[in-house]
Amino acid sequence: MKLATLRTADGGTTAALAMGGNSYVPLPANDVGALLSVPDWRALAEAAFVAASGPGVVSAPPSELAPLLPRAGKVICCGLNYSDHIQEMGRELPEYPTLFAKYADTLIGPADTIHVHGSAKVDWEAELAVVVGSELFRADEDQARAAIAGYTIANDVSMRDWQNRTLQWFQGKAFDGTTPVGPVMVTADEADCDFEVRGYVNGELVQHGSTSTLVFGPAKLLSYISQFTILRPGDLVLTGTPGGVGMGMTPPRFLNDGDVLTTEIDGIGRLENQFRIHAPVPANV
Amino acid sequence: MKLATLRTADGGTTAALAMGGNSYVPLPANDVGALLSVPDWRALAEAAFVAASGPGVVSAPPSELAPLLPRAGKVICCGLNYSDHIQEMGRELPEYPTLFAKYADTLIGPADTIHVHGSAKVDWEAELAVVVGSELFRADEDQARAAIAGYTIANDVSMRDWQNRTLQWFQGKAFDGTTPVGPVMVTADEADCDFEVRGYVNGELVQHGSTSTLVFGPAKLLSYISQFTILRPGDLVLTGTPGGVGMGMTPPRFLNDGDVLTTEIDGIGRLENQFRIHAPVPANV
Repeated sequence: MKLATLRTADGGTTAALAMGGNSYVPLPANDVGALLSVPDWRALAEAAFVAASGPGVVSAPPSELAPLLPRAGKVICCGLNYSDHIQEMGRELPEYPTLFAKYADTLIGPADTIHVHGSAKVDWEAELAVVVGSELFRADEDQARAAIAGYTIANDVSMRDWQNRTLQWFQGKAFDGTTPVGPVMVTADEADCDFEVRGYVNGELVQHGSTSTLVFGPAKLLSYISQFTILRPGDLVLTGTPGGVGMGMTPPRFLNDGDVLTTEIDGIGRLENQFRIHAPVPANV
Repeated sequence: MKLATLRTADGGTTAALAMGGNSYVPLPANDVGALLSVPDWRALAEAAFVAASGPGVVSAPPSELAPLLPRAGKVICCGLNYSDHIQEMGRELPEYPTLFAKYADTLIGPADTIHVHGSAKVDWEAELAVVVGSELFRADEDQARAAIAGYTIANDVSMRDWQNRTLQWFQGKAFDGTTPVGPVMVTADEADCDFEVRGYVNGELVQHGSTSTLVFGPAKLLSYISQFTILRPGDLVLTGTPGGVGMGMTPPRFLNDGDVLTTEIDGIGRLENQFRIHAPVPANV
């Protein structure tokens, strides 16, 4: 089962079952996060699928896809998580996941234009993201695995100049409307264990990794996070990015105004976002 | 005007006007954050004050005070912000604020017992916190100053072992129910410009700083944050802690089971929280 969040004509959003192509069956919840808060969300979606006749199916182009979880309570990201990339850099594998937080305001739809104001070093980080399906607190790995609703794609677009102003990455990761997510969540029961994650800039492949090389896989990450904070349905955990980010290139390479960033995972879909890089804000800061 | 969030008999909360002592006038909003989302919240609170007769005033002991902003959308913290402490450490004053994020689940009431599971290095960080009163996005310092609803007290209690596991502090700062906040918000019009911040462990003064020595004051911090993310009514910004944290002592000193942490700012009030330090969770993480 694939779920999406669609924009509606009244300026709101609705959860929907993705039927393939541009076809969707709207579901009675404002977004996928709200749907996952319904205890029997799976039965609800299945019933909608069975009931869907011609008139129940709507057609929506990619531009009508909202960020999958526009009101996610927590968006927690892991850095430094691909062992092949860590080892090729000659570093030790980490004992603990490097975690940082962002807010739902950072999220944007899978085909939306991304506007960045005030950064000259806009970089990409193609990632598999895990959607939490039920409450988790101090859970072990098996409990965490059972609580995964499904998987989606995100790009943890990073303003490297802001990220490196101080030791804490948050300010370079938390620009509103710069983290595309979607296009759909594939439910865990239909997903492969391993995913191929690819990132492209203007069609050129720049990142490619397999989640089979993650140091901390989805269940381990959720279990670890749940030791200190509760995870709830609709929360999102980004699992880190493979090698090939612009900052690591020689010379470093960043996104230019007009560039198109594509983030792709087989079996889930792709994000395709054009960038508008605006002049720095002439603020007194 | 002083505002608080009280626990109610039905397990919920209500915003209230703090009348001094243990006296409060409940207001028609679930908490101070919800109150601040009402455009004319000030008039609403003033009307309630005028209308309050004997029966309208309730008595609530400190234990009935909830975290001031139990549903804060953003809780953004600044580190390394007291110039006297930075300079006594022989460091340069920072050009940019060091920022990190936490979630509202970290917040706990001003007299609540704080339970910590799985950390042996629980440390204190007494702080002035700023409550956002209106939407701010790419605001200059004057706009940011005008958007400050008021000031409160927080203690950014930090699990140093978790904080120092990786380069990003988040996991040591984001334990649920470990950041006391309150007891009240003093509205900006009634607050001094400068505050004396004090922290005590079992009655012994361990931290003392004046916010007059902040490198990035409240308005500057809010303006800076608003360059990349929108701030909304009820969001909370912690301004950093003065010298005197346990990690900086020789030898380092951490909280023990049963210790009482007091956090005090003249003109706002005090937080008084006892700690229960529980054995590490025997998890497979």
